[in-house]
Amino acid sequence: MPTLRIALCQIDIIVGALDHNADLIIEALTQAEAADCDLAVFGELSICGYPPEDLLYKPRFIADNKAALARVAAATGNCAVIVGYADRDPENPELIYNRAAICAGGEVKGSFTKQALPNYNVFDEKRYFTPGSDFPLWSIAGVNVGVAICEDLWIADGPCKALADGGAQIIVNINASPYHKDKVEERDAMLDDRFAECATPIAYVNLVGGQDELVFDGASVVVDVNGEIIARAGQFVEQVQIADFAVTDRKPVTLPLTEVTNRASQSRAGLPPVLEPLLDPLEEIWAALVLGVKDYVNNNGFTEVCFGLSGGIDSAITACLAADAFGPENVHAVMMPSRYSSNHSVSDSEKLVQNLGIDGRVVPIEAAHHGFMDMLTPSLGTEPWGLTEENLQSRIRGVVLMALANKFGWLVLTTGNKSETAVGYSTLYGDTAGAYAVIKDIWKLQVYELSRDYNRRAGREIIPENILTKAPSAELRPDQRDDQSLPPYEELDPMLIQLVEQNRTAHDLIEAGGDEAVVRRIARLVDIAEFKRQQSPLGTRISKRAFGKDRRMPITNLYRGGSSS
Amino acid sequence: MPTLRIALCQIDIIVGALDHNADLIIEALTQAEAADCDLAVFGELSICGYPPEDLLYKPRFIADNKAALARVAAATGNCAVIVGYADRDPENPELIYNRAAICAGGEVKGSFTKQALPNYNVFDEKRYFTPGSDFPLWSIAGVNVGVAICEDLWIADGPCKALADGGAQIIVNINASPYHKDKVEERDAMLDDRFAECATPIAYVNLVGGQDELVFDGASVVVDVNGEIIARAGQFVEQVQIADFAVTDRKPVTLPLTEVTNRASQSRAGLPPVLEPLLDPLEEIWAALVLGVKDYVNNNGFTEVCFGLSGGIDSAITACLAADAFGPENVHAVMMPSRYSSNHSVSDSEKLVQNLGIDGRVVPIEAAHHGFMDMLTPSLGTEPWGLTEENLQSRIRGVVLMALANKFGWLVLTTGNKSETAVGYSTLYGDTAGAYAVIKDIWKLQVYELSRDYNRRAGREIIPENILTKAPSAELRPDQRDDQSLPPYEELDPMLIQLVEQNRTAHDLIEAGGDEAVVRRIARLVDIAEFKRQQSPLGTRISKRAFGKDRRMPITNLYRGGSSS
Repeated sequence: MPTLRIALCQIDIIVGALDHNADLIIEALTQAEAADCDLAVFGELSICGYPPEDLLYKPRFIADNKAALARVAAATGNCAVIVGYADRDPENPELIYNRAAICAGGEVKGSFTKQALPNYNVFDEKRYFTPGSDFPLWSIAGVNVGVAICEDLWIADGPCKALADGGAQIIVNINASPYHKDKVEERDAMLDDRFAECATPIAYVNLVGGQDELVFDGASVVVDVNGEIIARAGQFVEQVQIADFAVTDRKPVTLPLTEVTNRASQSRAGLPPVLEPLLDPLEEIWAALVLGVKDYVNNNGFTEVCFGLSGGIDSAITACLAADAFGPENVHAVMMPSRYSSNHSVSDSEKLVQNLGIDGRVVPIEAAHHGFMDMLTPSLGTEPWGLTEENLQSRIRGVVLMALANKFGWLVLTTGNKSETAVGYSTLYGDTAGAYAVIKDIWKLQVYELSRDYNRRAGREIIPENILTKAPSAELRPDQRDDQSLPPYEELDPMLIQLVEQNRTAHDLIEAGGDEAVVRRIARLVDIAEFKRQQSPLGTRISKRAFGKDRRMPITNLYRGGSSS
Repeated sequence: MPTLRIALCQIDIIVGALDHNADLIIEALTQAEAADCDLAVFGELSICGYPPEDLLYKPRFIADNKAALARVAAATGNCAVIVGYADRDPENPELIYNRAAICAGGEVKGSFTKQALPNYNVFDEKRYFTPGSDFPLWSIAGVNVGVAICEDLWIADGPCKALADGGAQIIVNINASPYHKDKVEERDAMLDDRFAECATPIAYVNLVGGQDELVFDGASVVVDVNGEIIARAGQFVEQVQIADFAVTDRKPVTLPLTEVTNRASQSRAGLPPVLEPLLDPLEEIWAALVLGVKDYVNNNGFTEVCFGLSGGIDSAITACLAADAFGPENVHAVMMPSRYSSNHSVSDSEKLVQNLGIDGRVVPIEAAHHGFMDMLTPSLGTEPWGLTEENLQSRIRGVVLMALANKFGWLVLTTGNKSETAVGYSTLYGDTAGAYAVIKDIWKLQVYELSRDYNRRAGREIIPENILTKAPSAELRPDQRDDQSLPPYEELDPMLIQLVEQNRTAHDLIEAGGDEAVVRRIARLVDIAEFKRQQSPLGTRISKRAFGKDRRMPITNLYRGGSSS
């Protein structure tokens, strides 16, 4: 059987960093050449980054990304490169393509144009790209290779079948496949289906790294001639993983075939396949959260972060994630007690600060609280201000964090979880003030699970037990507790998952036995919090339906979820 | 020649307000029936509102919108109704359609499915809808009517040509066509083209009203059998405009034809055609801004608004727009002088308050400013804080406005213009704090034009001359002026228009003769302000490329506009 040595190059490219990305690609190519590879494969749109969004509308951006591609091509020799880039039609420059370039011997030998353009969930590819319709094959080191891009591989009886039927001995699929929980299992099932259909090995290469709300998990794989996964790169790590494997015997070729390289590569000693172990489910989410915030902060030019540490579980887990992502020396936790803060809020926080070895500082907010009360009394009167005063405290804290961040060049992280974000249990310009919402897509019950698992993996109580067990409270008035205004999270989270992630409405939940008054109230909170969410920071997408590009809701929306509302 | 009496029903429907929308439709139908119309036509997705966005993914939402449609259909008699609604495929509920229902005699007689689905600019229709492929005709009062939806009409040699060739004596086109500057001229040119191609009269009905960042301008028209526009409804007003007009003589019918109503209607006395005059260009923008903010505020349940009145032109024009939209009695202007405010900032503002008859109140921010300085000195030191202190003042003002809004149930408007929004000349959680950015899509030079035109139309100096002539300043430090850190707006605005609206990059502007240092700095400001824009409030779209759904940029973006950057 003919064999091929492929380098699966999962690298952490950055949107718009054309030269930087080309440098990373050439560096990985050098490794692949040193290992005597026939082919080095890079992810979808690796030259320009994914998703480039409206940068694609700038003609110069596409021209510059093609110049970067030319530089990559010029660096190729006998080891072929397959790499994603953006292109436009020379005849009709309105038409933009998502392409894979096939390069070797110092030049671009040709390209494949993506056919299946996802335009759902977080994807907007039909906004930008015109689909291709050609099925070229490429002869690389004596093997006939079919190339496809991301979604192309997910289509039954689609591009991959056409390539396999037309003579491909292997399908090389380049991806920008964003992580969500259980995505690895979905991919593996899809690869099984595609192999069953095509009976051809598949090399699947994914990007790795964070890009705004998305995080790419890597986990590139090779499916061999028997349909088995014989190589897998790590999750959430940059890696050039080299795999030797047999391809199908030569088949009759009915598609146009271009010779790329002609080296016969059969004399090498074979390499043993490497299968990096998969992370366990909670560790996987943790790794996604760490990489998501790390790349956002670093790629935007920041190294240090700060956030409010309240004594609650959400800011505690944020502190742990930040320490993992940036190192404790770059993490500043700010405790901002008010006249309503409990005694334990600072003492629990200080324990955590000590356990993590991060910088902790206390800025009591009484002076500003008092100043505002004085200043606003002529307008608001002397009666208790209720919610207005609660929001005031939260906003003072937001101002403090922003002042520290402005002065010291830190980036502010926010600490709200998905349950809070769903019901708007937050203060706009207060605790939502910041550049990145680390646990925005983590439900409150998951926050507890992840926190306990973190302590377990550490083998010690990094997050103090009192933080894990105290009743959730915003501490914005005396003796406030979340469960005074919300159902317990054991009831709330499942309800929210249906409303937010599963397209159910209030009436659906009531029909299924939900308490009418509670369901109506919670569903209404979710709807009216849309204006807050649209002004809140990004956060790493972990679920299949995150708040962000995934879920596009009108703010002005009078739908109340059906019947009798 | 056969004639038809059509009611062009441009009504201000609300997304999700299914019952409310159905009520408005039935009310307009009643008017059409009273006027002995053959047909009442309503805009695209009038039943559910446009754009419903991810509400369409909720099966119950579509079911409920069909129930509202059934109620409309039940109200029909001899006057047929053509109205937009959302539907799903009974066989394959994943498939969602954008449809026009044709109703009469108490029932839905059939439907047309939109074929051309826009997925550019602000549109995401390929995210939701499956295109139709059938061309039904409808016999209404003896006339063979072809129905099409919005974009269908913009396609050369597309659905309308097929309908005309297949026997349609008139094309009825239902629209949700959002306003932008010069849109009326674009539409009229398109109607000319389509008439030239189809030689068939066209009844074009648009929605009217604001929906988040979009505003629909109405201006529904009838193109007669000679290609002339013989009827036009007003811009930015709800109207049931009734038009009598001849259609083409009966042609051979090759498409499937369904009888809807059979009333022969030739005995009526003819109505003279009504052509509402078009607004002049500045008045048109003014009307769009007023309707945009009015519908946003009212449809979200608010009646009163507040904002910071600084003594500058941006907050002055916002005050005038708010007074027009809500009546002066519902407008609260808050003057918040700081230790750095000029003497004229409050006196000019007070003049404007008096001229408009709005509520004005002064809340000096010194107490909170002082409180924060005291509170933060241990962390930030006693040296001047520079930008940190400037942002602090702006954020204190944001907190004051939110406190007033929370306490009194007002909605906070922001006052930033498009030039500031482009370069990030604003403080996040400070002057960007609020629910709606009234002039977000108005360049600074346009702000001056609109302001002078407002005074001119009023016939008196409502906006004090001193506000129109003083040098723009944020007054966040002594003697600060915009032109200390930005080029004069006469240079800045044209540069920004190219960078923001025309897909040019820094290198393009330098090649065209721009000063390298200035261009690079401004282009960089535009790029790095993306994080601020994504947390800033919505505002009415006026240009063809507004900040919002129109312009989707990554925050993490290392592209610097080409060569040598």
